[in-house]
Amino acid sequence: MPRTVLAELASHVGERVRVCGWVEGITDAGEGWRVVLRDRSASAVLVVGACPPGMQREAAVEVVGEVVADPDAPGGVTVVSGEVRVVGPVLDELPLGDGSSLEERLDWRFLDLRRPRNVLAFAVQTTAERAMRQYWAEHGFLELHSPKLRPNPNRSGRELFSVPYFDRQAYLVQSPQFYKQMAMAAGFERIFEIGPVFRAFPFITARHDTEFTSVDVEMSWIDSHHDLMAFEERWLRHVIATVAAEHSDDIARLFGTEVVVPSLPFPRVSLDEARALAEKAGPHLAQPPGDLDPRGERALGEHVASTFGHEFVFVTEYPESTRGFYHMHTEDGSAHLRDFDLLWKGMEVTTGAQREHRYDRLIAQAEADGVPLEPIRYYLDCFRFGCPPHGGFGLGLTRMLMALLGQDDVREVTFLSRSRDRLSP
Amino acid sequence: MPRTVLAELASHVGERVRVCGWVEGITDAGEGWRVVLRDRSASAVLVVGACPPGMQREAAVEVVGEVVADPDAPGGVTVVSGEVRVVGPVLDELPLGDGSSLEERLDWRFLDLRRPRNVLAFAVQTTAERAMRQYWAEHGFLELHSPKLRPNPNRSGRELFSVPYFDRQAYLVQSPQFYKQMAMAAGFERIFEIGPVFRAFPFITARHDTEFTSVDVEMSWIDSHHDLMAFEERWLRHVIATVAAEHSDDIARLFGTEVVVPSLPFPRVSLDEARALAEKAGPHLAQPPGDLDPRGERALGEHVASTFGHEFVFVTEYPESTRGFYHMHTEDGSAHLRDFDLLWKGMEVTTGAQREHRYDRLIAQAEADGVPLEPIRYYLDCFRFGCPPHGGFGLGLTRMLMALLGQDDVREVTFLSRSRDRLSP
Repeated sequence: MPRTVLAELASHVGERVRVCGWVEGITDAGEGWRVVLRDRSASAVLVVGACPPGMQREAAVEVVGEVVADPDAPGGVTVVSGEVRVVGPVLDELPLGDGSSLEERLDWRFLDLRRPRNVLAFAVQTTAERAMRQYWAEHGFLELHSPKLRPNPNRSGRELFSVPYFDRQAYLVQSPQFYKQMAMAAGFERIFEIGPVFRAFPFITARHDTEFTSVDVEMSWIDSHHDLMAFEERWLRHVIATVAAEHSDDIARLFGTEVVVPSLPFPRVSLDEARALAEKAGPHLAQPPGDLDPRGERALGEHVASTFGHEFVFVTEYPESTRGFYHMHTEDGSAHLRDFDLLWKGMEVTTGAQREHRYDRLIAQAEADGVPLEPIRYYLDCFRFGCPPHGGFGLGLTRMLMALLGQDDVREVTFLSRSRDRLSP
Repeated sequence: MPRTVLAELASHVGERVRVCGWVEGITDAGEGWRVVLRDRSASAVLVVGACPPGMQREAAVEVVGEVVADPDAPGGVTVVSGEVRVVGPVLDELPLGDGSSLEERLDWRFLDLRRPRNVLAFAVQTTAERAMRQYWAEHGFLELHSPKLRPNPNRSGRELFSVPYFDRQAYLVQSPQFYKQMAMAAGFERIFEIGPVFRAFPFITARHDTEFTSVDVEMSWIDSHHDLMAFEERWLRHVIATVAAEHSDDIARLFGTEVVVPSLPFPRVSLDEARALAEKAGPHLAQPPGDLDPRGERALGEHVASTFGHEFVFVTEYPESTRGFYHMHTEDGSAHLRDFDLLWKGMEVTTGAQREHRYDRLIAQAEADGVPLEPIRYYLDCFRFGCPPHGGFGLGLTRMLMALLGQDDVREVTFLSRSRDRLSP
């Protein structure tokens, strides 16, 4: 007998249905039991004659019964049945309760994830990715799956996982950027990739994990980083509008957060302006040279919210000293770069840039930066045989979810998080 | 000035346009040069007054010119311009030519990928994934991003990459199966994931890579593996029909392969029947105990093609001795499993099964199999607190592309392939 999901019961009044889900609660109803059942779509009330062994809160059960109109029940119906089949009993006391700590919840993540707000987080993630892909498909993007094993360390060798690879060493990618650029040298013109990246952060914070999902875009035939920002803001508006249309009521109910569809264009400030604004907000917010720190990002986010009524701000044109040699400068000879970060609610969610595609300038910048050329020959070769102008950006998927759902800990919106101290479950 | 892609030139006759792409050829046209330009959409003819330095085959160029109707030119138009801008010159002799070997082409993969048939392979991949996701979205699936770093080796420890992880060892996942199952214990009910998996194959073949993209599905509330096969065949038919509608002409032209939309249901044979059929095809095809080898798979594929006129066949119900302890048996006490492989054109593309979700049986099967329980406690715990019946399957994305495009080497349809001897580019 095909299964009926609980959200659709109201259209089956008077019919026999099969429903499946988890027990949320059981109360004695005199001549039987009143069971609240939960599946991914909704919760509903069952009235059953008997409770078999193993039938308790969070047991997985199946019931065949008749749908009866019941104006007092949630959803307006109950399912009346003589019998419940416990297909997944609960064999021990549940290890999680209302007072469980974050670490306990992460230890028992599969139980923690059963909470409707956690299921919603992943429904929102699914919708957001679907909207991203829809926009990419409409704009001629190819999907890329680039290797996660790379042959050489990044320049600093910092926060890098190495992997013994037969008789040598491989390394886990920290970003697919080099491979995205190869796709541009290969004439793919516009690509996206959603995939894992790995960073051996040796510290524990609410915003850093050692493995996370990166959303990456690369585009050829751009004139500057302004083309990338113009693309990203339209793409993000489409994503947020899609999430708002499908989930804003649930997000308000379960997370207390309003999904705001952003207006275009997003505000833009240069890094120099951003630093000054952060420092004006408080002398204790003196910013590190050439960047914003998290407190500065928050101060800037608050300034943009109060001045422009906007959750987003692009911070543009970082000094060359703070970034990799492969960025294009604003003008040849300038000390500033054609790059940007995007902050959402005062948190960095994106870094992007136009790359330097002119071989002689790329070599000169690498040498000026002290980068040995031989180990990256396979990268440099891409610029010797007809490489178009290009650039791209990366967006952290879970950071996006944090902003969308008003969460301040990335572990709350990651399926199974990884950090220095956490490698399981 | 916005760019016009070459496939759309015909609708801009009489207009000034900006076109961008790579030079396929240059011939002296008397009072100027005739240049064949290629972008990802098409090729077209330009007539230009002068050829600047660096302008040669495979250079990346931009041209602003007028679109003129020209019935003799491919696409029915030429672009006439005084000037070409070389934005990505060719600085050396091209390292690839018509006679280049596979290894040379893989060394210079970004140049190899510029061939229209290779771009088509990734356009087909993009379309196939879009169709997969569309079907999942219509059937209530959530997208999963499960960790690629796991805390313990698989049972055999074979073909496993280890990763020094701070003060201990992590391992790269060979399959997301355990994590897909956790999502079922978490009440996600139906999930998919497209992501990398890693297998340290110590040998080089046309079908094995050390990193590849796995397409994974897991579903709860199934009755048996037959529900999984019924889902997979409908899903695949949708994917193949979508690819056929968008690309069958190009695939026929560039790969010489016909895309056949399969009829439903796919043929099904038990493993015992499959072994007998393979061995009947030739006494030299004696099959290893409990499985088919690649020659047996090909023989079975040919038998199914000639008998049923079908490219697909499900091979079902493997003996327990050949598979992991976590499979459900066909009946309690049976030596056969609720599992299946799917062959396409005589090549295995999928393995799937109903999992054993009953804790006591799972423990008994692990113990009978000699599996130590303590290291997998975090897995076993999922079955103690209301785990629904569930199962799933995995499909190799590049194996699917091999079958779709009639290719017999996975490296031809992988963006950048990884094997024992190849870790770059």
